[in-house]
Amino acid sequence: MKIALLQLNFIVGDFHGNGQKILDGYQQACDQGADLVVTSELALYGYPPLDFLERPEAHDIQAAMLGELQKHIHRVGLILGVSERREGPGKRLFNASVLIQDGEIRQRWHKALLPTYDVFDEARYFESGRDDVFVFDYQDKKIAMLVCEDIWGGAEILDCPQLYQRDPVEELSKLNPDILIVPNGSPYHWKKGNDRLTLVGRVAQQLNAHVVYVNQVGGNTDLVFDGRSFVLDSSGKCVDVAPAFEEAVKVIDTSTSDRMDYLEDSNLENLYQALVLGVRDYMKKTGHQNALLGLSGGIDSALTACIAADAVGSENVTAVMMPSPFSSGHSVTDSEQLVTNLGIHSHKIEIESLYETYGQTLEPIIGWHPPGQNPGDVTEENIQARIRGNLLMAMANRNPGTLLLSTGNKSEVAMGYCTLYGDMAGGFAVLSDVWKTLVFQLAKHLNRNRKMIPDHTIAKPPSAELRPDQKDSDSLPEYDVLDAVLQAYLEDHLSIKKILKKGLADANTIEKIIRTTNLNEFKRRQMAPGLKVTSKAFGSGRRMPIAAKL
Amino acid sequence: MKIALLQLNFIVGDFHGNGQKILDGYQQACDQGADLVVTSELALYGYPPLDFLERPEAHDIQAAMLGELQKHIHRVGLILGVSERREGPGKRLFNASVLIQDGEIRQRWHKALLPTYDVFDEARYFESGRDDVFVFDYQDKKIAMLVCEDIWGGAEILDCPQLYQRDPVEELSKLNPDILIVPNGSPYHWKKGNDRLTLVGRVAQQLNAHVVYVNQVGGNTDLVFDGRSFVLDSSGKCVDVAPAFEEAVKVIDTSTSDRMDYLEDSNLENLYQALVLGVRDYMKKTGHQNALLGLSGGIDSALTACIAADAVGSENVTAVMMPSPFSSGHSVTDSEQLVTNLGIHSHKIEIESLYETYGQTLEPIIGWHPPGQNPGDVTEENIQARIRGNLLMAMANRNPGTLLLSTGNKSEVAMGYCTLYGDMAGGFAVLSDVWKTLVFQLAKHLNRNRKMIPDHTIAKPPSAELRPDQKDSDSLPEYDVLDAVLQAYLEDHLSIKKILKKGLADANTIEKIIRTTNLNEFKRRQMAPGLKVTSKAFGSGRRMPIAAKL
Repeated sequence: MKIALLQLNFIVGDFHGNGQKILDGYQQACDQGADLVVTSELALYGYPPLDFLERPEAHDIQAAMLGELQKHIHRVGLILGVSERREGPGKRLFNASVLIQDGEIRQRWHKALLPTYDVFDEARYFESGRDDVFVFDYQDKKIAMLVCEDIWGGAEILDCPQLYQRDPVEELSKLNPDILIVPNGSPYHWKKGNDRLTLVGRVAQQLNAHVVYVNQVGGNTDLVFDGRSFVLDSSGKCVDVAPAFEEAVKVIDTSTSDRMDYLEDSNLENLYQALVLGVRDYMKKTGHQNALLGLSGGIDSALTACIAADAVGSENVTAVMMPSPFSSGHSVTDSEQLVTNLGIHSHKIEIESLYETYGQTLEPIIGWHPPGQNPGDVTEENIQARIRGNLLMAMANRNPGTLLLSTGNKSEVAMGYCTLYGDMAGGFAVLSDVWKTLVFQLAKHLNRNRKMIPDHTIAKPPSAELRPDQKDSDSLPEYDVLDAVLQAYLEDHLSIKKILKKGLADANTIEKIIRTTNLNEFKRRQMAPGLKVTSKAFGSGRRMPIAAKL
Repeated sequence: MKIALLQLNFIVGDFHGNGQKILDGYQQACDQGADLVVTSELALYGYPPLDFLERPEAHDIQAAMLGELQKHIHRVGLILGVSERREGPGKRLFNASVLIQDGEIRQRWHKALLPTYDVFDEARYFESGRDDVFVFDYQDKKIAMLVCEDIWGGAEILDCPQLYQRDPVEELSKLNPDILIVPNGSPYHWKKGNDRLTLVGRVAQQLNAHVVYVNQVGGNTDLVFDGRSFVLDSSGKCVDVAPAFEEAVKVIDTSTSDRMDYLEDSNLENLYQALVLGVRDYMKKTGHQNALLGLSGGIDSALTACIAADAVGSENVTAVMMPSPFSSGHSVTDSEQLVTNLGIHSHKIEIESLYETYGQTLEPIIGWHPPGQNPGDVTEENIQARIRGNLLMAMANRNPGTLLLSTGNKSEVAMGYCTLYGDMAGGFAVLSDVWKTLVFQLAKHLNRNRKMIPDHTIAKPPSAELRPDQKDSDSLPEYDVLDAVLQAYLEDHLSIKKILKKGLADANTIEKIIRTTNLNEFKRRQMAPGLKVTSKAFGSGRRMPIAAKL
C-alpha cells in the first residue's frame, strides 16, 4: 500500500491555513498515487494548542474547517488528527484520529494515553479514550490507528517509568493488524530520535506489522518539531524516512523491499538545525522579519548571531557592539571579525556616557562605586547590562518587525549568572536550553568547514566584562564541572546522593550549584521563551515554586 | 466530638519547619481538649509543591519527617495531608489523608479526583486513588476522610462542568458517616468562599453529616490561601469558622448547638486583605524585608504602596518619584501627599538627564524625536519607563533584602499597555489580577475611614504621562467597557458571539480587545509572578501559545 505522510508546519490556531495545507498535501499525495494519506496529531489546530483548546469558539471553527475538508476527500482515505467533542462527566474533548473517506468520517480512535508531564498537559484538556482497540479493513489490509503517546505504553524498554495503566499496543497485538498508523506531535530534543526508533521498532515487532509514524515539523513558541516521519517494517527496520526540519509530502510503499538507515540523531548538526528552525519559525509566526542582538565578543552571542543569520538571512540580522570602560579591546575586534564573516549589519555604541549619567543620578541616593569594589554588590555591573538591554529594545521598538534575541546559555540561566532586563532582555532566548560546554561544541562544529566564529572568541576564558579582569570562573565552577552537575540534577533527575556518587564534584560544590539554581527561579520566571532542545528545559516543562525552601 | 482545625501557613518544601508547626498545633489542640486534630492538604510539603514533588529526595525527606511526627501522636488522632509512594504502572505518588494514632498510621485515603485545570496540575504528579470509600469508627462516631477536590464531584450545582467520572460524596452517602473530614489546599479568589459554602453545605445535607473543612492559609508565590476553615452541621449550617488570612488552631465541638454566619466573601476588605497577605508572604518566604516601588501619582502605584505598607510596615517601604519632562506637576505633589499619609520613605529622582543622554546616544543610530510625534512609535516613551525600571532595580540591588514591586493592573497587562523592563520591572506584580475598575473601588474603600490616597489621584483621568497630554483613553476603550469585555473573555470564558449578545460593546471593539490581549501574550510571559485573586489570572493558570494565530 502506498501511504502518504503529510509532514507539515502548522501555525497553532490557524485553522484555515492549516486546513489548506492539509488539502494541498492530500492532493499532491493523490497525484503521486497514494492509497492512504496521514497527518500529524491535532493537525487542524497545530500542536500544542494549549489553553486555546478551552476557548468556546475553537472547537466550532475546527468543526467548520473539518466539514470543508471532508468535501474534498474522495476514495483515497485521509487519517487526520482532530479534537472531538464529547458528552457526559469528564473533560469536554477527546484527542482523536479519524479516517475520512468519500466525504465521511468512517473510523475514529480516541487517544487513550494522555501525556501529562514535562511540557505536556493533555489531562488538562482531554478525557482518556476508553474504547477497545480495533482494526479496520482498508483495501486488502487490516489497519489500526492510535495517537502519539498511545504507543508509549511500553516505554519501560527505554528505562522510562511505566506511566499508564493501559497499553494499547499490547491490546492490538491480539488483533493482528498489518499496518499501525500513528499521527504524532512529538517535539525534538537532542538524541530523542533514537529513542523513538527503538520504541517504535519494538512496537512493529510486537505487532508484526508495519508502523507509519507521522510527525509535525516546525517551531511553535518554545517547542521545535523535527518531522522525520517514517515507516518501519514488521521487523522494526526503517522502510523510509522523511527529512528532518522541513516540510514533506512523502509517499512510502509498504510493499517495497528497500530499507534504509534512520538518521543518527546525536550529531551537532542536528541540534544546530533545530535551533535555526526554532528561531526562524518563532519569528515568522510572530510577524518578525529582522533579528537584532548584542555582540559582546563572547561565544554565546557569536553562536546566536550564526543561528540568526541561518534562520532569516544575514541581510536581516543586525548586531550591536556596546563596549563599556570595562570591555576588553578584543571584545570589539572579535565581534567585528564575526560581523564580517557572517555579512550581517552592525552598529557600535559606546555606553560610557550613559553609565556615567546613571552614576551621577544615583550617587546622591545609593552612592556609586567602581564595579567589583564591594564583593557581592552587583549594582554597577547590572546597570551596564541594563543600559545595553535598553538600547537594543529601543532599536527594536523603532524598527517594526524586529525581534531582539537574547543570548544567555542554559548554564548561566540555571545559576542566575545573568541580569534581568539586561542581557536577559529580548523576545526569544535562543540558547537557554544549551549548556555552555555544548555552546563550545556547536561553535567548533560551525567552524569545521569555514571559519565563522573567530578563534579568539572560542579560546578566551569566558567573561561578562562588567568589572576589571572579571572571569566567569570567579563566580562559577569550571563549566565542565558545572554542566555535568546541572545535567545530572536537571535532566537526569538524580538525587544529590547519586550525583555525589558519580564523582562529578565534591559535596559542597554540588549543594551550592543546586541551591543557587533553586534560588534563581525568580529570574527564570521572567525569562523570554526559549527553545527546548534537551529532555528538560527551563520554562513550561519545569514548574518550580519561587517562595519556597527547596 | 471536639475537632481541632490546624489552619497553618506553610513554606513549600520546608518539611522541618512545617512539621514543627503541625506538632506545635497538635499539642496546643490537645491542651484545649481536642479529640481529633486535622491539617490541610499535603501539609508537610506545603501546597502546591509543584515539580518539587518530582525531586527524588523530596519523598524521603517527607517520610523521615512523618516518622518523627508519628512518635509524638498519642491517643488523640491526627488526620494529616501527605503524599504516599505507590508501585506499579502510573504516576509514583498518591495525594493522601492519613489518620495517625498512637504513633501508627491507622487509616489512609488516596485522593480520587485530581484537579487538572487552571493553576492545578495534579494529574502531572499523582495517580487517582481507586479504592472504595470507607468510614471508620473513632470514639463513638463514624468518620469518613476525603481530600479537597474529592468533594467537588457534584460541582454542577455551581454551574461548573462535571469534570469527573466518579463522585466520592455520592458513594459515601450509602455509608452514613457522622462526620466527613476534608483537608484542603484551596486558594482564595474573590467570591470563591461563597461557592465553597454552597458546595460543602450541599455535601453535608447529602451525607446528613457534619463536614470539617480545613484549609491552609498564607501566600505561596502566585497563590494566596485564605484559611477560613469551617465546620458545617448536617443541615449545611455553619457551626464555626476560623479567621480569614491568619493562622489559627481552632477547636470546634460538633455537639454544640451554636451556629454562626459564615462571612460574606464579596467585600472589598476581603480582597484587600488577600493582596496584603500575598505580598507579605511572598516577601517573607523569599527573604525580603523591604519593599520598593515607583510612585507615579497614579492610582495603581498609590494602591500598591498602601498594600506594601500594610504588608511589611510603613517603615519598610520606600517609594521613588521619578518625574520626566512629560510628567504633570501633580504627579509629584499627589505622590508626596500619599507618602505623608502613609509615613513611608521616599526619594525623588529627575530622569531628564538620563533621557537626554539616551537621546544623544541613540540619535546617530535610530534618530530621536519628541515622544508621540510618530503615531504608533513608542521608542521614546518606553525609554522613560525603562530608565525608571533601571533606577529602581539599582536601588534594590544596592540594598539586600529589598524587593521591587511592580504596579500594573490586570486591564493594562491584558492589553499590553505597559513596558517590558520598564514599569513591568520588579519581583512581584501586586495588582496583575485586579481590574482597573476594581483598583478604583479598592482605593475608595481604603479611604472610607481615613484619607490615604489623595482625592486627585482617584479623580484624575488615568495617564502614563510618557508624552504631552497623554491619556489612557487615547489608546484604550474606557475602563468600564474594557474591563467588562475582558472579564467576559478571560474569566467567564464567553465566546465573542455571547459577549456581543451581552451588549458590552460593539463587535469591532470586542474583537480588537480580544485580539490585542492575545497579541500581548509575549509581554505577560516575562511578567513577574503576581497574585491570583480572581477565577482566572494571567500566569500559571492560563497557558497560551505566543507563536500562534488566535
